[in-house]
Amino acid sequence: MMNPSPSLQDCEVLDQQDPLRQLRDQFDLPDGVIYLDGNSLGVLPRATPTRVAQAVTQEWGQDLIKSWNSAGWFTLPQRVGDKIARVIGAGASEVVAADSTSINLYKVLCAALHIAAADAPHKKTIVSERSNFPTDLYIAQALCQERGYTLQLVEAEDIGTALQGDAAILMLTHVNYRTGAMHDMAALTAQAHAQGTLTVWDLAHSAGAVPVDLRDAQADFAVGCGYKYLNGGPGAPAFVWVNPRHTDRFWQPLAGWWGHAAPFEFTPDYRPASGITRYQCGTQPILSLTALDCGLDTMLAAETLGGMAALRRKSLALTGLFMQLVRTRLHGHGFGIATPEPEALRGSQVSLTRGEGAYAIVQALIARGVIGDFRAGDGGQHPDILRFGFTPLYIGYADVWHAAEHLRQVMDSGEWRDARFAHKNAVT
Amino acid sequence: MMNPSPSLQDCEVLDQQDPLRQLRDQFDLPDGVIYLDGNSLGVLPRATPTRVAQAVTQEWGQDLIKSWNSAGWFTLPQRVGDKIARVIGAGASEVVAADSTSINLYKVLCAALHIAAADAPHKKTIVSERSNFPTDLYIAQALCQERGYTLQLVEAEDIGTALQGDAAILMLTHVNYRTGAMHDMAALTAQAHAQGTLTVWDLAHSAGAVPVDLRDAQADFAVGCGYKYLNGGPGAPAFVWVNPRHTDRFWQPLAGWWGHAAPFEFTPDYRPASGITRYQCGTQPILSLTALDCGLDTMLAAETLGGMAALRRKSLALTGLFMQLVRTRLHGHGFGIATPEPEALRGSQVSLTRGEGAYAIVQALIARGVIGDFRAGDGGQHPDILRFGFTPLYIGYADVWHAAEHLRQVMDSGEWRDARFAHKNAVT
Repeated sequence: MMNPSPSLQDCEVLDQQDPLRQLRDQFDLPDGVIYLDGNSLGVLPRATPTRVAQAVTQEWGQDLIKSWNSAGWFTLPQRVGDKIARVIGAGASEVVAADSTSINLYKVLCAALHIAAADAPHKKTIVSERSNFPTDLYIAQALCQERGYTLQLVEAEDIGTALQGDAAILMLTHVNYRTGAMHDMAALTAQAHAQGTLTVWDLAHSAGAVPVDLRDAQADFAVGCGYKYLNGGPGAPAFVWVNPRHTDRFWQPLAGWWGHAAPFEFTPDYRPASGITRYQCGTQPILSLTALDCGLDTMLAAETLGGMAALRRKSLALTGLFMQLVRTRLHGHGFGIATPEPEALRGSQVSLTRGEGAYAIVQALIARGVIGDFRAGDGGQHPDILRFGFTPLYIGYADVWHAAEHLRQVMDSGEWRDARFAHKNAVT
Repeated sequence: MMNPSPSLQDCEVLDQQDPLRQLRDQFDLPDGVIYLDGNSLGVLPRATPTRVAQAVTQEWGQDLIKSWNSAGWFTLPQRVGDKIARVIGAGASEVVAADSTSINLYKVLCAALHIAAADAPHKKTIVSERSNFPTDLYIAQALCQERGYTLQLVEAEDIGTALQGDAAILMLTHVNYRTGAMHDMAALTAQAHAQGTLTVWDLAHSAGAVPVDLRDAQADFAVGCGYKYLNGGPGAPAFVWVNPRHTDRFWQPLAGWWGHAAPFEFTPDYRPASGITRYQCGTQPILSLTALDCGLDTMLAAETLGGMAALRRKSLALTGLFMQLVRTRLHGHGFGIATPEPEALRGSQVSLTRGEGAYAIVQALIARGVIGDFRAGDGGQHPDILRFGFTPLYIGYADVWHAAEHLRQVMDSGEWRDARFAHKNAVT
């Protein structure tokens, strides 16, 4: 096993022995950069520029509207959805890639509220975590306001208690965007179902990052993001899954023509398609969806190398290594580890805390080519966070060692106190 | 003036004299094709492949998350929106490019229903045209069903009568997707306002095709499409405009983090941004949005050549020429013209009808490289349509002559009766 403070050489040996090492060659990583922000925006697959260029110049430029059929544009949301299904434990024809995560969340929350109103009309609360990604809370808040529901926000440890109330829906992000803490989807779903509560899971930080088995967990609804661990490019379309037992029970209200049973009959009356197709709305951004299709291919290339289980082993080894280096080589620099230590409780990122300077330290690291990000705290229970994502598709053990070493040098030198690192701006 | 049946030579002279002729050089038109379907999917601007490639390889591939700021990804919806504003008579900071037309329609219908409920609570109907684009009707239908409203569909000539009922909202597509008939936006808006009815305009077949002046018309809400006359590429993001007198009166329910007043504070409570920014929801597909930005630049290049007024003059000349050729050179072939003759009543397309064979004739033309499209009728009042869009940015007078000539040859030869043209499929 690894010694208490692994050396760079130890890490280089681990890289040489890594059965997934070849997957890194699929990506175009900028020179001199250690990219630990794949949990915010995944990196560019080498295949993507050519594929997107083909969609632009050949499919659009030369073939024009014919490409709706000949290039399969019209079925791209389903075909990409089928690829996503393979990494989240969903069945074929159960997922579509479309719209944004927020919009897909709105669709499934509307459906869940409808089903809850029919099956458990006395339940009038949506329960979520206070530190859930804000946009999820905003969408739920707007719906609650409109429909006479209450949005109850609790800490993770209070979810069980909250479920004993009148929770119609439990809406959680599987892996917390701030801390990287991972919920036990199967256990919480079972607990929710025992109380007659439906579950809505946001897989933004899970899909492609940790094993997910929606069918096995008997989850009710799920949405997720295409531009993080799925490497779909900036603002890539998101995805939506609905358990087949619910799919046909409700028209989701974004009832556009792509969700119609026969869109080209151009009938004035809406007739929803059966299955997940009814969770589509309007025409999708084909160029961005094409890039997402490429990103998924890089993920599915792992299937012959042990698939998600192998990716998970490596991800845990990478995050474990980083935490170990923080405890050993960064000892005394005031960092706390916000990410849970037990493997079953963490995703594919490590979040650090520090009494002061979290933002400036992240900026000083970025100036050195180590790209993580900063997430502001609330000044109370949720402190400022230094966030580091470890994507096993393209991050190696030596990368982790160098990242920790840069962090050590930033702290030892005090360079993070430089005024140029003080100005705040941050995105996703 | 033009003689009763203009010759090819007449048309070539018109092309030589066309002050907008140079705009065509901005586009990459496939060889041997006369593309009369820009009302479905605009053609590829020459600048777009390079610009999209730069977004893929440099902004995403090399600069990664930094590009949210350095490449201006985060403000792209507003910057593209400001360009769209210039072609639809909206002010700066009044438009955002985001999501799909259907989703934007949902946002503005929710807002309009909210405002109507406050200002005219007894009004319980949304009035629209029976031959409006179906997805608009589906979105309205789903909302009506949910909110206890009635969707009343009428023929164009009955809109005035319908407004005398309890219409909360008049929802119209400015230029009809089937016939190309154009409503008088200012007159209908005034008529609606006189009855206390709000107006929602879909500009899918107007933006970039005909002069639109939303502010002058005092319209209330508008949405539109990026991939038709704005040449944004397949499934390009759509746009949304709200009259500033309404913008801040309501949270639209797709209340995602991009519509938040301070999205990077990551607060659990939603606080809508002021102005049109609150009509954003989640992260936008940046590659597709970048292509739309390029498409708009080709449109705005007309500004120094007389702008929308000059484009409109040419558009009317092209559609007028085609109708004239149908009446003269296609006389006796059974075609009717569904597009209104008076210039004030038509958009930038010409729609033909024929007792039989509309679909097969379109297919036979496509086989000859003349690309129009087919729209099915309802077997009653709305017949099958052969649709030909004339985009003045890249279509010339000789193109129109050749298109009509191909149509004449298709009819004279009877080749449209060939079995290979009989199978139906059609997209947008």
